[in-house]
Amino acid sequence: MAWNTNLRWRLPLTCLLLEAAMVVLFGVFVRYDYEADPHWPEEKRHKNIISDSENDFYYRYPSFQDVHVMIFVGFGFLMTFLQRYGFSALGFTFLLAAFGIQWALLMQGWFHSFKDGYIRIGVESLINADFCVGSVCVAFGALLGKVSPIQLLIMTLFQVTLFTVNEFILLNLLLVKDAGGSMTIHTFGAYFGLTVAWILYRPNLQQSKERQSSVYYSDLFAMIGTLFLWLYWPSFNSAVSNHGDAQHRAVINTYCSLAACVLTSVALSSALQKKGKLDMVHIQNATLAGGVAVGTAAEMMLMPYGSIIVGSISGIISTLGFTYLTPFLETHLKIQDTCGIHNLHGIPGLIGGIVGAVTAASATSEVYGHEGLVHAFDLEGGKYNRTTQLQGSFQAAGIFVSLAMALVGGGIVGIILKLPCWGQPPDENCFEDEIYWEIPKKQENAIYHPEDPPSSP
Amino acid sequence: MAWNTNLRWRLPLTCLLLEAAMVVLFGVFVRYDYEADPHWPEEKRHKNIISDSENDFYYRYPSFQDVHVMIFVGFGFLMTFLQRYGFSALGFTFLLAAFGIQWALLMQGWFHSFKDGYIRIGVESLINADFCVGSVCVAFGALLGKVSPIQLLIMTLFQVTLFTVNEFILLNLLLVKDAGGSMTIHTFGAYFGLTVAWILYRPNLQQSKERQSSVYYSDLFAMIGTLFLWLYWPSFNSAVSNHGDAQHRAVINTYCSLAACVLTSVALSSALQKKGKLDMVHIQNATLAGGVAVGTAAEMMLMPYGSIIVGSISGIISTLGFTYLTPFLETHLKIQDTCGIHNLHGIPGLIGGIVGAVTAASATSEVYGHEGLVHAFDLEGGKYNRTTQLQGSFQAAGIFVSLAMALVGGGIVGIILKLPCWGQPPDENCFEDEIYWEIPKKQENAIYHPEDPPSSP
Amino acid sequence: MAWNTNLRWRLPLTCLLLEAAMVVLFGVFVRYDYEADPHWPEEKRHKNIISDSENDFYYRYPSFQDVHVMIFVGFGFLMTFLQRYGFSALGFTFLLAAFGIQWALLMQGWFHSFKDGYIRIGVESLINADFCVGSVCVAFGALLGKVSPIQLLIMTLFQVTLFTVNEFILLNLLLVKDAGGSMTIHTFGAYFGLTVAWILYRPNLQQSKERQSSVYYSDLFAMIGTLFLWLYWPSFNSAVSNHGDAQHRAVINTYCSLAACVLTSVALSSALQKKGKLDMVHIQNATLAGGVAVGTAAEMMLMPYGSIIVGSISGIISTLGFTYLTPFLETHLKIQDTCGIHNLHGIPGLIGGIVGAVTAASATSEVYGHEGLVHAFDLEGGKYNRTTQLQGSFQAAGIFVSLAMALVGGGIVGIILKLPCWGQPPDENCFEDEIYWEIPKKQENAIYHPEDPPSSP
Repeated sequence: MAWNTNLRWRLPLTCLLLEAAMVVLFGVFVRYDYEADPHWPEEKRHKNIISDSENDFYYRYPSFQDVHVMIFVGFGFLMTFLQRYGFSALGFTFLLAAFGIQWALLMQGWFHSFKDGYIRIGVESLINADFCVGSVCVAFGALLGKVSPIQLLIMTLFQVTLFTVNEFILLNLLLVKDAGGSMTIHTFGAYFGLTVAWILYRPNLQQSKERQSSVYYSDLFAMIGTLFLWLYWPSFNSAVSNHGDAQHRAVINTYCSLAACVLTSVALSSALQKKGKLDMVHIQNATLAGGVAVGTAAEMMLMPYGSIIVGSISGIISTLGFTYLTPFLETHLKIQDTCGIHNLHGIPGLIGGIVGAVTAASATSEVYGHEGLVHAFDLEGGKYNRTTQLQGSFQAAGIFVSLAMALVGGGIVGIILKLPCWGQPPDENCFEDEIYWEIPKKQENAIYHPEDPPSSP
Repeated sequence: MAWNTNLRWRLPLTCLLLEAAMVVLFGVFVRYDYEADPHWPEEKRHKNIISDSENDFYYRYPSFQDVHVMIFVGFGFLMTFLQRYGFSALGFTFLLAAFGIQWALLMQGWFHSFKDGYIRIGVESLINADFCVGSVCVAFGALLGKVSPIQLLIMTLFQVTLFTVNEFILLNLLLVKDAGGSMTIHTFGAYFGLTVAWILYRPNLQQSKERQSSVYYSDLFAMIGTLFLWLYWPSFNSAVSNHGDAQHRAVINTYCSLAACVLTSVALSSALQKKGKLDMVHIQNATLAGGVAVGTAAEMMLMPYGSIIVGSISGIISTLGFTYLTPFLETHLKIQDTCGIHNLHGIPGLIGGIVGAVTAASATSEVYGHEGLVHAFDLEGGKYNRTTQLQGSFQAAGIFVSLAMALVGGGIVGIILKLPCWGQPPDENCFEDEIYWEIPKKQENAIYHPEDPPSSP
Repeated sequence: MAWNTNLRWRLPLTCLLLEAAMVVLFGVFVRYDYEADPHWPEEKRHKNIISDSENDFYYRYPSFQDVHVMIFVGFGFLMTFLQRYGFSALGFTFLLAAFGIQWALLMQGWFHSFKDGYIRIGVESLINADFCVGSVCVAFGALLGKVSPIQLLIMTLFQVTLFTVNEFILLNLLLVKDAGGSMTIHTFGAYFGLTVAWILYRPNLQQSKERQSSVYYSDLFAMIGTLFLWLYWPSFNSAVSNHGDAQHRAVINTYCSLAACVLTSVALSSALQKKGKLDMVHIQNATLAGGVAVGTAAEMMLMPYGSIIVGSISGIISTLGFTYLTPFLETHLKIQDTCGIHNLHGIPGLIGGIVGAVTAASATSEVYGHEGLVHAFDLEGGKYNRTTQLQGSFQAAGIFVSLAMALVGGGIVGIILKLPCWGQPPDENCFEDEIYWEIPKKQENAIYHPEDPPSSP
C-alpha cells in the first residue's frame, strides 16, 4: 500500500476547521452555569446558601483535577510502552483529548444541560467531558500505532457523539446509575475500539512486529501512566457521585478493589511464566482492572469486602486475558488490540456492569435506610415506583445497550476510517513515530555511555 | 575564556549565607496569619464563623498544591529536553525555586501583609510565593544551559525583589486585576529573562550547538513537564481569585483556552514542516500559550468562546514564533533564548494583558450584575468611582509598567551577572551537566541493549 | 549460595493466600464509618450538621490523594535510581504497598476504630493505611536490590503489625502527638529496615557492586520520585491534623522546612566534592530530610523560622550522612543500606522526635491561647492534668519506644527473612531486574541513536 502519510495540509486543515467550528458553536450555545456566573452572590442570597463553600466547585474540583491528570498523563504515558511510539502516544492523546473535551462539552451540554437555548457549564461539565474523552482514549488503545492523527480526530468526533447518545439512553431513559462509567466509558469505549480495530485489520502487520514491543526505559515511562491512573481512580469513580456519603464510599470501594487487584495480577503474572518471572504488561495494565470493575457499583453498598472480591477477580481475569485472549483475538477473530484494552476495559467493564446490576438489585432499605435508598438510586419523580430489583434489571439492560451502541457505532466509524485518504501508515511503518514526527537524530556522543560495548553476550 | 567553574566554595557559601539571612529575617518578621494560628477557635467565635471549612486553607489548598507541582515538576521537567542538561534543569530549578519561595514570602509579606511589625503568612502567601518563583523559572528558560547556579541564585534574589515591586505597583497602585499573572508573572518574567540573555550574549555559543537539542528520551521527560503545566494551569489562573464564582469561572476559561491552543499548535506545527511532520518543541511549548494568554482575563466574563478564541490565536502565534522569531532574535537581536520563552511567555503574556484590558473595559453591570461587577473589580473604597473603561486603561498601563520594569531590571541584573566571578561555563561547555554535576560514568553492560548495533543506517 | 529464585509457585501462592485472608477478614470486620454510610443524611439531621461540606471527606480527600501519590509514585520512582532495578523498584513498591494498605486498614482498625465488633473506615483510615505503608517503603529502601518480593510481603505483614502496636503505644498510651510521623513512620521504619539489613548482611555483595549505581536516565526517573515527595510533603504532615489552624500551620511549617533543606543540601553536596560538583544522590534524598524532621512538630507552634532552622540542619546532617556515615555503617557495622535511609529517615526522624518534644515542652497558653493549647495537645479527658513539660517528656519517651520496637521487631523479622526459602537473589545477582522480571530484549535498531559510537573517550 502506498498511502500518502504527508499530512501537511490535511492535518492542519482538519484541526483548524474543527477549532473554528468550536468557536462558532461555543459562541452560540455555551454559557457559564449559575455557580460560575458573577450573579452568584445574588443567587446565594436567593437560595439561602450561606457559604461559598457550597459552590459545587469546592466539592468537585480536586476530583476534577485528578481525572484530568488521568486522561492526559495516565492514558498518555500508559501508551508510551512501545519502543518507538512515545511521541505519538503522548502527542496524539493530547490532541484527541484536547479536541474531545471541547466537543464533549457541547454534546453533553445539548443532552444534559440545555436550558433556554444555552448550555450551562460548570465544574461537573468539565469532569463529564474528561470522562467522555476517557472512552475515546480507551478505544485509541486498540488502534495505537496503526492510525493517523486525522483518523483519531475523526474517530473522536464520532465517538464522543455516540458516547453522549448512549449515556443519555442509560442515564436519562433507563435511569441507571453508572458513576464510574463501567458501562458508559469502559464497556462502550472498549468494544467500540475493538470493532474499529476489527474493521481496520491489517493482515501484514507482522512487518512491523519488531517494533510492537517495549524497551527498558519505555516500560518505565509507561509506569508513570499506570501509577497515576491507579492512584487517581478513586477520584474517577467518585467524581460525579452525590455529595457526602456517596463520594466518600466510592473512594473507599475503589481503593480497596484496586489494592486487591494488584495482588492477584502479580500472582497470575508469575504463575503464567515458566520461570515465575513477572511481566511488565500485566503490572502496567491488569492492576488497573479493579478500578474499571467497581465503576458502576463504587457508590453503592458494595461493602469493602465486596470491592476486594471484585478487584481480585478482575486482576485474575485481566491477566489471563493478556496471556491467552489477546493472541486468540488476533489470530482467530482478526482483532489486533495493541494495548489489550479488551482485558483492561472490555471484560472488566462488563464485570462492572454486572456487579452494578446485582448490587442495585440486592439493595434494601435495611442497609441503606429509607432516605438513603431513595437518595442513592434517585427513587423519586419518574422512578418513584421502581423497586431495586427493577433497577437491577435496568442496570443489566444498560450493559446490552452499551454493547450494541459500541458494535454498531464502531462498525460505521471503522468503515469511515478505512477510506484510504486519512494518511494512515503502511503496514511496514506501524508503531513508528518517524512517520508523523520530526525525530531528533543526534545522540549525545556517548559521554554518558562510554562502556556501552558494541559486542556483548 | 578560562572561567573557573569549580564552585566548591562559592556555591556552598552563597547557599549558606542566603539561608542564614532567611533564618534571621523569618525570625524577626514572619508569623502565622490568624487562620493558621492556634487562636483560630477564638477567632472563629469572634467573627461568627460557623465552620472550619471557612478557613481559607480549604478554599485554596488544592489549587496551591497544583501550582506547587507546576513550578517544580512542570518547569523543571519541561527544561529537561536538552540531551545533556537534565540534571541541571531539574536541580537548578529545584535550588532557585526553593530559595525563591522563601525570599518571596518575605518580599511579598513586606509589601502586602505587613501589620504591626510582622508579616502574617497563610496558604495564599504560599501560592503567591510560588507565583513569584514561576516568574524566575520563566526567565531561567532563556538562560538555560548558559549560567551557573550561583548566577541563578543572584538572579532570583533580584528578580523576586523587582517582581514584588512591579506587582505592588500593578495591584496596589494601579489597582489592576491579574489573577493568572499574564502581566506580573509571564510578561515580566519573559522580558526580564530576555534582557538578561541579551546582555549575556555569547557570540561563540555555536561551539556548544551540538548539545543544544533533544534526544528521544529527553523529549519524553520534557512531556512530563508540559502535561503537568497544561493540566494544572486552570488551578494556576484561579488560585488566588475570589471564592465562589470567580475561581470557578477562571478554571472553565483556562480549560477551554488550553484545549483550543493544542489544536492550533498542532495545526501550525504540521503546516510549517515540508513533510507535515510534527515538531516536539511546539507540542511541548506552544500548547501552553493558551494558559498564559487568559491569565489576566480568566476570572472575568471572557466567556467560553472568548477563551477558545484567545487560546486558538495564542497557539498559532506561539508556533510561528518558535519557527521564525526565535532564530530572528538570535541572529539579528543577539538574544539567545534557549527555551523560546518569548513565544511561550513573552508574546502570550502581552496578549493576556491586552485581552484583560479589553475584557475589563467592556464589562457592564448587565453582564455581571451590579453586585457582581463591584465584586469582580473591587469597585469599592479607593476604586469607588472608577468606571470599567478606566479600569481597562489602567490594565493596559499595567502592561507597559511590567515591560519597563522587566527591561530596566533585566538590564541591571544582566550586568551584575556578566561579572566573570560567578562560575559560568565557557562557550564550549554550555548545555552540559558535567560542568556542575558528578555524572554516572558506567552504563549497564548492554544487557538491555544487546542489539544496539555499532554501525547502522 | 544456590538459592532457587524461580518464584513460580511461591509468589502466586503467597499473594493469593494473603488476598484470600483479606477477603475473609474484611468480610467479618470492615464496614463504612458513618460519614461514608448511606445513613449520612439522617446522621446529619441527628447531629445538626448543616452541610455536606462538613463530611470529613472534604477536609481530607485532597491531602489523602497527595499522600497516596507519595507512597506509590514518590517512593516507587525515588528507588528507580539503580541502573537495572527500575522494574523492581516500581513493581515491588506497588505490590507491597497494595498489600500493606489492606492489612493496615485491618490492623489500625482493630486498634483505633473497632466498635461493636466492626471496624469503621473512612477517608482518615485510608490516609493512616498509606502512612503505615510509608513506613514499610522506608524499610524497603535499606533492602532494595537484595530481597525477593516474597520477603517483602512477609516483611510488610510483620512490619505493619508492629507499626500499629507501636503507634498505639505512642498515640493511645503515651498520648504523644506525631501528626507527620517523625517517630512512628520514619524513625520506626528506618531502624526497622536497618536492623533487617544488618541481619541480612551479604559479605559478598561487592560481586554486584557494578550495578549498585545509577545511570543518567535512571537518575532522571528518580527525580520524579524526589519531586513528588518533596512537593506533597506538606500534605503528608498535615493530613491527619485537626481541622482548621492545625492543618494550615502544618503545611506552612513543612513548606518552609523543605525549602531551607534544599539550600543546605546543595551547599554541602558541593562543598564535599573536590571540584565542587553536585551529587545527584544528595539532591534526590537529602533535600527531603526537612520534611521528615518537622513531622512531629509541624502542627505545633514551631514558627516559620523554627521550621527553617530545622530544615537547614537536617539538610546538612543528611548530606554528611550520605558521604561519611553510609560507608561507615557498611564497613564497620555491616549494615548495607542501599538507599541511605539512615540519612533520610533515620537521623531526621530522630531530629523530628526531639524537635517535637522540645516544641511541646515549651508550649505555653500565651502562645497558643488557653483554648488553643487544650485543642492542640488534647489536654482533656485523661490528659486533663498533663502540663506541656510533661507532654514533652512523653514525646521524648515516644522516640525510645519507637527505637526499641524497631530494633527488636526488625531483629525478629530479619531472622525470619534469613530463611533460605524465600527466593532471594544470590550475591552476584543483586540489584538486577532480570531475576524476577521478563526484560525486553530487543532495542530499537539504533534509529534514534545512529551516532552512538562504539569507541569513545
